[in-house]
Amino acid sequence: MSDAISPLATPFPAMPAIAGVTLRVARAGYKDWSRCDLTYVELAEGTSVAGVFTRNICCSSEVEIGRANIKQGQARALIVNAGNSNAFTGYRGREAVEQIMDQVAAHLNAPREQVFVSSTGVIGVPLPKDKAREGVDAVVKAAPCTWLDAAHTIGTTDTFAKGATATAIVDGRTITLSAFIKGSGMIAPDMATMLGYIFTDAAIAPAYLQELLSAAANETFNCITVDSDTSTSDTVLAFATGKAGNDRINGAGCAGADAFAAALTDVCRQLAQLVVKDGEGAQKFIAVSVTGAVNDASARKIGLAIANSPLVKTAIAGEDANWGRVVMAVGKAGEPANRDLLSIGFGGIWAAKDGQPLADYDEAPVAAHLRGREISIEVDIGLGQGRATVWTCDLTHGYISINADYRS
Amino acid sequence: MSDAISPLATPFPAMPAIAGVTLRVARAGYKDWSRCDLTYVELAEGTSVAGVFTRNICCSSEVEIGRANIKQGQARALIVNAGNSNAFTGYRGREAVEQIMDQVAAHLNAPREQVFVSSTGVIGVPLPKDKAREGVDAVVKAAPCTWLDAAHTIGTTDTFAKGATATAIVDGRTITLSAFIKGSGMIAPDMATMLGYIFTDAAIAPAYLQELLSAAANETFNCITVDSDTSTSDTVLAFATGKAGNDRINGAGCAGADAFAAALTDVCRQLAQLVVKDGEGAQKFIAVSVTGAVNDASARKIGLAIANSPLVKTAIAGEDANWGRVVMAVGKAGEPANRDLLSIGFGGIWAAKDGQPLADYDEAPVAAHLRGREISIEVDIGLGQGRATVWTCDLTHGYISINADYRS
Repeated sequence: MSDAISPLATPFPAMPAIAGVTLRVARAGYKDWSRCDLTYVELAEGTSVAGVFTRNICCSSEVEIGRANIKQGQARALIVNAGNSNAFTGYRGREAVEQIMDQVAAHLNAPREQVFVSSTGVIGVPLPKDKAREGVDAVVKAAPCTWLDAAHTIGTTDTFAKGATATAIVDGRTITLSAFIKGSGMIAPDMATMLGYIFTDAAIAPAYLQELLSAAANETFNCITVDSDTSTSDTVLAFATGKAGNDRINGAGCAGADAFAAALTDVCRQLAQLVVKDGEGAQKFIAVSVTGAVNDASARKIGLAIANSPLVKTAIAGEDANWGRVVMAVGKAGEPANRDLLSIGFGGIWAAKDGQPLADYDEAPVAAHLRGREISIEVDIGLGQGRATVWTCDLTHGYISINADYRS
Repeated sequence: MSDAISPLATPFPAMPAIAGVTLRVARAGYKDWSRCDLTYVELAEGTSVAGVFTRNICCSSEVEIGRANIKQGQARALIVNAGNSNAFTGYRGREAVEQIMDQVAAHLNAPREQVFVSSTGVIGVPLPKDKAREGVDAVVKAAPCTWLDAAHTIGTTDTFAKGATATAIVDGRTITLSAFIKGSGMIAPDMATMLGYIFTDAAIAPAYLQELLSAAANETFNCITVDSDTSTSDTVLAFATGKAGNDRINGAGCAGADAFAAALTDVCRQLAQLVVKDGEGAQKFIAVSVTGAVNDASARKIGLAIANSPLVKTAIAGEDANWGRVVMAVGKAGEPANRDLLSIGFGGIWAAKDGQPLADYDEAPVAAHLRGREISIEVDIGLGQGRATVWTCDLTHGYISINADYRS
């Protein structure tokens, strides 16, 4: 964890325990530091698992193996290594992951494909097998720890620990979701990685959990951007222990399915926004709302073009109501748009409508809005009913300092 | 023109006059400044014209009208306004362009569709018609000026004037190309615009000139990026007066067609690289060479993913041989690639091959290369014969200062 805390940081929430989930941390010493860097989550037998992974072709062995094993739908353990991403390390990196899986599987007397591993940190250095072995030996014997301990331990250059929780009534019972995530603090000297883990006591079939997680990710994790760069290790996993005792949710028609889906999406949205709030150098949190696109997918693409535009992000950093840059970003998105139907606003106040600046546009309230920490940009395309909201942060000197001034 | 000159600036070349081309500049006063901001180029009757324009959907009226009029293939005049892009100004902006076209056409007794207009500068403010009228009145009476004068006058926050020249033997005669361009210095507080103009005395059919210009743009202007943002006004026009007296080049089979195409591409490449060398905050010029892609288009897409990656660009700014970030950018490009066949190098020295860091990799010569001004990144995908080179600059505190610290 870095020293300077993001000005957008929020306190770690009070997170309920999840029956069937036990957290432990230890120090493997993947880097020369005194903090814990190895997290172990033991999961009750019968836990369902679902996952979404980076689309980066050059993904790590952890992602490759996890993507293959998620299909069998059951999980007994999660290991997260911090300080070394083990990405782009060829067969040696793969061997290290398989060693961890074997070691944990033997400890639990469980099939090894039910052990999920993530790693985040420096790229191109195979995860040292000896440190991993000793670390796993230590962590399985460690005392159970808190959500906050685990959230800290998976962090790299994150500036604050990030957690989220929600409940839903399913089949007459309260089910709980507790989750933590790391991301968007840079792992010096390499790329940021987003690793998120969601735990629930709900009973839910793996295939349906996967369907709900993929849908939730689509409107949460896939709607955030810090710098348009995609990590080789991004992973979000959802684990459902079934200990709440509800009738298992097998599909959309089951009791509580909608409530569970809403709670899951809520947790995913909280986690995704926390990542943006810890974006490198972030001083402002930006929500880009696009309406009137030809469909939702088009709205999201336009939103991401705006949220990824260095010129828009630096304008917000400069507290400049530069709607011309938003027009530019809409135009380059490659999606249907008509310049003369386009409207742009900040903080709910239109600056331009129907392809022209508003004659009576008063910049004073907009300028006041832009001096705040939470900024909204509204774009109406004027063509259809498609809508999306995308979240990002501003682009500041802090981003350059973190990523350029640091030498490996 | 800005005060602080780019460390990558090159001297303005000695540029030969082109028969049939007369340059003049004047001050319309589009902004409150004492410099000239209106450029007028008079072209001999029978001049062929070709053009490539921004793909930004929210383009300016200048681009819309120019794109329509380029099809008739003849040009008598070019007007360039600096200080106001006239983009996103609705019908009022369009009227201002049409007024300029009418005024110049009347002066020359030429069809108005042969008058081409470009504008660069602040967005969302209609070009003031009165200033434009007085400016055009003044400029048509002004004394002819030099290439350097014109190159300065079309600039906005460019830090140096940019010109390029080349010759070719066509049909036994020497034909000359002289060209100038502006771009990538920001027009505070709006987006950068690239405006480029190429003049030649060659006799060439407009349709074939268009074919050659489009092909040249594809491997030059379309292979540069500063910040991935696409201006609403980008325009490159090529004018051929025919005064060299060669047999008109009508197609690929004609005498000198290949020599002319090579010279045109050479000039386009020079201009494109000059824009990158004046990229906002640029301290280093970066050439990204991609080989072994499945085809050339795929190689260019991969090259642009690398050149647009904020993490790669900040690593170069920090003189950090962070090949892991290059791997990440290849992986996110969405093009065919295989992690385990990928090789990455800097300055001609491989750092990683076949999906793994090289065992005997010596960072010292790479570090020395990265301390220079001109950086090369080599990427071999290992799949096919596709290749491309893409040019960009590093991402520095200067970029943030220019685009965020400045308030409109």
